[in-house]
Amino acid sequence: MDLLSLENPVFEVYVTAAALAVLKLMLQGWMTVYRMLRANSGWASPEDLRPGLINRAPDKAQLEVNEYVDRSRRMHRNDLENIPGFLIAGLLFVVVNPNLLLAQVLMYGFLLARLAHFGAYASQLSHEVRATFYTIGSLIVIYMAAHVLWSVLT
Amino acid sequence: MDLLSLENPVFEVYVTAAALAVLKLMLQGWMTVYRMLRANSGWASPEDLRPGLINRAPDKAQLEVNEYVDRSRRMHRNDLENIPGFLIAGLLFVVVNPNLLLAQVLMYGFLLARLAHFGAYASQLSHEVRATFYTIGSLIVIYMAAHVLWSVLT
Amino acid sequence: MDLLSLENPVFEVYVTAAALAVLKLMLQGWMTVYRMLRANSGWASPEDLRPGLINRAPDKAQLEVNEYVDRSRRMHRNDLENIPGFLIAGLLFVVVNPNLLLAQVLMYGFLLARLAHFGAYASQLSHEVRATFYTIGSLIVIYMAAHVLWSVLT
Repeated sequence: MDLLSLENPVFEVYVTAAALAVLKLMLQGWMTVYRMLRANSGWASPEDLRPGLINRAPDKAQLEVNEYVDRSRRMHRNDLENIPGFLIAGLLFVVVNPNLLLAQVLMYGFLLARLAHFGAYASQLSHEVRATFYTIGSLIVIYMAAHVLWSVLT
Repeated sequence: MDLLSLENPVFEVYVTAAALAVLKLMLQGWMTVYRMLRANSGWASPEDLRPGLINRAPDKAQLEVNEYVDRSRRMHRNDLENIPGFLIAGLLFVVVNPNLLLAQVLMYGFLLARLAHFGAYASQLSHEVRATFYTIGSLIVIYMAAHVLWSVLT
Repeated sequence: MDLLSLENPVFEVYVTAAALAVLKLMLQGWMTVYRMLRANSGWASPEDLRPGLINRAPDKAQLEVNEYVDRSRRMHRNDLENIPGFLIAGLLFVVVNPNLLLAQVLMYGFLLARLAHFGAYASQLSHEVRATFYTIGSLIVIYMAAHVLWSVLT
């Protein structure tokens, strides 16, 4: 059987989880846009102070760091530090033909951990809670990459 | 037919678009290098103030944020928020065997939108213009991921 | 032969190099965590100042930029600017069926260059040394993407 085809149930799990992870990553950009528009602040570039449809009453303070907007940018950066690594580690994991249940637990587990991390970060839960969900997601990616290495090198 | 082979015209479109997108991403790093050298400023680390080939006359002000250099860094960050997502969403899109014309429109459309975003950002066009091209690129990636999910889950 | 299977020695090189690159990327996040805990500073969010297991004696200064912690964040950002591009360019490179030795030199060369970049950045070697290793890694990714384009378009 061709491992990288939808006839392989493990690959189907990967494709599903990867598409959801890409959606999470891209939608975080739109959360930042929403917060910039709602706060009418947290703009990134000097030209954003030109009057226009987006910014009708420019003010220099709009270029300062705005915590409400910056929180979404930090969440986005945390996604960038975790999701691309997951997307590639997951693909490599499929190639070493793992157990289906293990793939489901790891891949859907990663998605759940990142969803919980999103919730904890957005609602400003304590550092311990956020760190726990980050840890679960990160360890899953590390495990998958190590499993791949082990399978290829032995 | 094996979908992930160059005999599949949709995969050939993906490989072409993905190679161009990787080049765009990597060259943005070199734009930052060029601007740092030209402005002789915007350095990132304290050790960059040691005299050497790159920096012959160090000055503490070289570590401050330099708008000319930082603009390229912001453009790079915007690439990082969009291009890796495109690269994976595009690969997943090939796997669900889409229409060739649709793949061409979406993938080359993404590249054109990012090229226009680059031009708008580099030449400091208004926020509205830059936001329009960001939106087109982002919606293409979101569409591809949603299309993949729909194909796999139905 | 199916190029994207472990029967293809070039793909095996890619899978090995890619798994190692993912591990490097993910472990950089843990270096930041280690440095935050060790310096007990460089926290990112206001809620990190709530007393808890991670932070027993909160102080507003813990939210300021801490060079020891920020160095690891800059290293992480540099990884994000290079490793995802490598992971995709390497996969595309396999697809155009390159010479095995060339693939080994480029892929393991990229890993060595990034390892040397890590060492130079962590130990605060001069900008020239760090820039040299960045250049090697970046040029390898650019070469692979250009080689892919050339193969597909001719």
